Amino acid sequence: MFTTFFQEDITLIKKRLETLREFMKEHGIDLYLVPTSDFHQSEYVGDHFMARKYMSGFTGSAGTLVVAKDQAGLWTDGRYFIQAEHQLAGSGITLFKMGVEGVPSVEEFIQENIPENGCLGFDGRAVNARLGLKLEEVLQEKNAKIAYEEDLVNAVWEDRPHLSKEPAFLLEEKYSGKKTADKLADLRKAMEKEGAGAFILTSLDDIAWLFNIRGNDIPCNPVVLSYAIVTKTEAFFFANPSVLSEEIKQTFAKDQIVVKPYEAIYEDVAKIAEQETILYDGAKVNYKLYKLMPPKAKKVDQCNPTTLQKAIKNEVEIENLRRSHLKDGIAVTKFMYWLKNNVGKIPMTEISASDYLLNLRKEQEGFIEPSFHTISAFGANAAMMHYSANEESNATLEPGSFLLVDSGGQYYEGTTDITRTFALGEVGPELKKYFTLVAKSMLNLANAKFLHGCTGQNLDILARGPLWDLGVDYRCGTGHGVGYLLNVHEAPNGFRWKIVPERNDSAVLEPGMVTTDEPGVYEEGRFGIRTENELVCREDVKTEYGQFLSFETITYAPIDLDAIDSSYLEPKDIKQLNAYHQLVREKLTPYLSAEEASWLAEYTRAI
Amino acid sequence: MFTTFFQEDITLIKKRLETLREFMKEHGIDLYLVPTSDFHQSEYVGDHFMARKYMSGFTGSAGTLVVAKDQAGLWTDGRYFIQAEHQLAGSGITLFKMGVEGVPSVEEFIQENIPENGCLGFDGRAVNARLGLKLEEVLQEKNAKIAYEEDLVNAVWEDRPHLSKEPAFLLEEKYSGKKTADKLADLRKAMEKEGAGAFILTSLDDIAWLFNIRGNDIPCNPVVLSYAIVTKTEAFFFANPSVLSEEIKQTFAKDQIVVKPYEAIYEDVAKIAEQETILYDGAKVNYKLYKLMPPKAKKVDQCNPTTLQKAIKNEVEIENLRRSHLKDGIAVTKFMYWLKNNVGKIPMTEISASDYLLNLRKEQEGFIEPSFHTISAFGANAAMMHYSANEESNATLEPGSFLLVDSGGQYYEGTTDITRTFALGEVGPELKKYFTLVAKSMLNLANAKFLHGCTGQNLDILARGPLWDLGVDYRCGTGHGVGYLLNVHEAPNGFRWKIVPERNDSAVLEPGMVTTDEPGVYEEGRFGIRTENELVCREDVKTEYGQFLSFETITYAPIDLDAIDSSYLEPKDIKQLNAYHQLVREKLTPYLSAEEASWLAEYTRAI
Repeated sequence: MFTTFFQEDITLIKKRLETLREFMKEHGIDLYLVPTSDFHQSEYVGDHFMARKYMSGFTGSAGTLVVAKDQAGLWTDGRYFIQAEHQLAGSGITLFKMGVEGVPSVEEFIQENIPENGCLGFDGRAVNARLGLKLEEVLQEKNAKIAYEEDLVNAVWEDRPHLSKEPAFLLEEKYSGKKTADKLADLRKAMEKEGAGAFILTSLDDIAWLFNIRGNDIPCNPVVLSYAIVTKTEAFFFANPSVLSEEIKQTFAKDQIVVKPYEAIYEDVAKIAEQETILYDGAKVNYKLYKLMPPKAKKVDQCNPTTLQKAIKNEVEIENLRRSHLKDGIAVTKFMYWLKNNVGKIPMTEISASDYLLNLRKEQEGFIEPSFHTISAFGANAAMMHYSANEESNATLEPGSFLLVDSGGQYYEGTTDITRTFALGEVGPELKKYFTLVAKSMLNLANAKFLHGCTGQNLDILARGPLWDLGVDYRCGTGHGVGYLLNVHEAPNGFRWKIVPERNDSAVLEPGMVTTDEPGVYEEGRFGIRTENELVCREDVKTEYGQFLSFETITYAPIDLDAIDSSYLEPKDIKQLNAYHQLVREKLTPYLSAEEASWLAEYTRAI
Repeated sequence: MFTTFFQEDITLIKKRLETLREFMKEHGIDLYLVPTSDFHQSEYVGDHFMARKYMSGFTGSAGTLVVAKDQAGLWTDGRYFIQAEHQLAGSGITLFKMGVEGVPSVEEFIQENIPENGCLGFDGRAVNARLGLKLEEVLQEKNAKIAYEEDLVNAVWEDRPHLSKEPAFLLEEKYSGKKTADKLADLRKAMEKEGAGAFILTSLDDIAWLFNIRGNDIPCNPVVLSYAIVTKTEAFFFANPSVLSEEIKQTFAKDQIVVKPYEAIYEDVAKIAEQETILYDGAKVNYKLYKLMPPKAKKVDQCNPTTLQKAIKNEVEIENLRRSHLKDGIAVTKFMYWLKNNVGKIPMTEISASDYLLNLRKEQEGFIEPSFHTISAFGANAAMMHYSANEESNATLEPGSFLLVDSGGQYYEGTTDITRTFALGEVGPELKKYFTLVAKSMLNLANAKFLHGCTGQNLDILARGPLWDLGVDYRCGTGHGVGYLLNVHEAPNGFRWKIVPERNDSAVLEPGMVTTDEPGVYEEGRFGIRTENELVCREDVKTEYGQFLSFETITYAPIDLDAIDSSYLEPKDIKQLNAYHQLVREKLTPYLSAEEASWLAEYTRAI
């Protein structure tokens, strides 16, 4: 199936680049780098931060633009080669395909193209400290310098959207399960362990977790644009004061949290005492903040302690998560009921189906918004892992193939992420084979029991093995951590067989961590299958050999038995599938109509 | 079952320590360190190198002695706590239990006990470069220095065995599969990649592999005491010239390998040009050699390139390995036939059984010696992983329990390592359960199919999972690399779930690597079970997802069906067991008597 990509008016792009070049000349800048980032290294960013998209016309989620006097280049990865080619056509911007042999990296390009004694410019707030330091090294050879104070795109971008300033709200203890004061105390213990007197925190989800607040400054990610500094005795919260209600201000005051304007952190970082040890995460804290730290202060670059603390959900959060997943399961199951009963009878498309599901979620109490842009992909469209239906690609649903729906919700009781692949009408034996193996893979991992100390790297083969046996693989991790009413992708846990250091998802699995389990099969131009449950890591038996851990599955929705071919399953697999379906049936039945319930009984029957 | 440990006459030990202290005083040495090592960091060492045993009376395979003016300490790990306590009793040497909380490490002890401006002494040839450098750091604070030139134990040890000088022999190309000249060419390519002009190689097995020679200087490890230096154009082999036959000398001369005396390397290393880049493995090259390298030369500390090259067996080696394993399988199977038919009828002990097996191996053409000291352990003795029967512990074999036999041979066609656990008479249901699960674990890993890029860490859970499911574990890796007519433990491949950097056994699995697969269950005071096959990594299908790999099992001997309870097996497990037994039957039958063959048919029947 063919997807058309929207292309921005190319003369506009050219004009923007020309204007940028004028500003570059004014500031004595030879190369200007425009990354895809906000000031917090968020995975998803608000409209204000779409600078790379604005300057290049390329709309993919990842990419870096570098503009020189007489050329410009855009770097993106394999997911976006075709899209970028379409969207950059005629713009004069060269596409650099990352990871392809012989293609220089951004750093290599800069190293080659920066003139002797030249100047590289970028907005120091949109580049992380580690990358900034790496670029310093790259430039040394040519004795070139960095100008990071000016956001030149801001000057070019006349109708730039303002920084988001949506109202924040407090997360009550019945949802968070832990007082801010207690979280601060734990954090200070972790700081003490590193001998750190000041901790600079700029990761929006970590800040939201630490201060028990949520907001709406990034679509699907209920965070508040903010920074924080925590010392042994003080805590500073930097945000637009207008987003904080009186209630929040009072609560913060009680916890001795000092509120300051969003931009004020840049002054305050510079004021940290020189003899202090500063703890910060160089992959998250931006380069400008780093440069403002007192040069003589000892700096410890380490993953934020809050990242691990946040990942280990407490018992209140876990009990809430069970509730949010129950709601989510009801919505997905009612959707499945509607879909299976109506496909081929009433008109349906990828988008209309997705809308129908969203409405079912909206019926659930405490639902706030989707936790990410729903993937609703029919037939061959589902082979694209990151497919997003648009008006042009929007396929009509009809019997004979799979509909893959990957969706989730933000509830006060937590964040959900679930994928189900539905057989529309009768599907062929090959599709059933792969569907069955994907279900087996997912269940195999979900039923793991393992010694404390294991990481996702140890366990990944439990999911991937049944597909590897056929010479098939999925080109992505098996699962990622999930936030609590926060980001759907959360560090530091995950399932992945090969470590990718930048991803920070290979931590030792700890009780309380929530991770998705989502193997799949993707055959280009043909079909895509994914089945995804969320798993909470729990303590299992402790024996003379050590503390064992296992998973509790908290996703409750049927795995489509119409597509299961049990000849591909061992007795153990069948037992696991039946046990899961029994759980789903017991959890959901009380919330369904009699008709739906009797349908569910059939779709969760023991096979 | 109780094991008594031999204790050396304690007055002798005390006297030796006193003499050492006199020499220390003479040399101005405050602390003297006696490690367990030869000059090559070999895992097993010859008699000449048993200095720590001589000085302390402790006979375990691992331990470090530190002697001070008024105290002495011995460090060893959990395997040896009980033994060391017995053997050190009354000697005045304090046992430091490594890994136990609050117990200082050797480095910490030295740091605390070295006086200001003091001196730590050790034989610089018996300590590796990395440890030496670490000790330098430790001593810096007290401005203390290292005296590494004198082997003071040598002065104490009057009747010290001479350095071994057993004759070496050439390994013909029909066994090695690759000419020395070609190996040197490959090595020089790897050196070039690191920009290295000189490579210092001191690992005995790497040297034997590179120069296609073998010897007899360490029991069970057919290596030659030697060093080597390889440059872009030259190769130097340092060994006692008396061990080299005329044939070897001529062959070396043809390959332009210059033979020099064993000790001459210490002069030659110092002569390497200052502007050279020297490649060496700091975990293997000794501290004295390191200190002799020109201070200004660039030094690249890296795993020997020969270690990976040696681990990837070529097709000739693999074909030979199949032959040596066939011979080994015949011996083990004939042993099993004898054992199962005679237990309870004729007197048998752990040692007599082990001797019987050794005689069967000796009947095999091309058998040289055992590849390690055989573990023959009955009943509760088998719960000790490193059990070695002696006259006192030697248990009588009788029906009702397991005999675990872990043994192997050195053949011209390669090194073997196999463990079988045999049910003597009828064994109870619990023993059968664990035996069956161990077999399942072993087969599960042996039948893995996986993408290139995996390490043993990814695959380990395939073996461990079935035991973890019951809250059971074995406290060791699942498998280790095996040499070709070389060391039975060989880097850099292995199966282990938690990386232990010093072990260097977590390399990416490459086609041609040979690794053991030996899960087990060990219940202290009750029983021990281990089933071990050797696996050759082979290319499997290449699909759009990448190059898949799988294993060929090259160990051929029955897994005792008398102890299999098939109720613990999935159909897949039964299929794998039957397929393995079919292979064993087909391989071995032609070499057995009619009686043995019909017995084998029964013991390899499909269940």
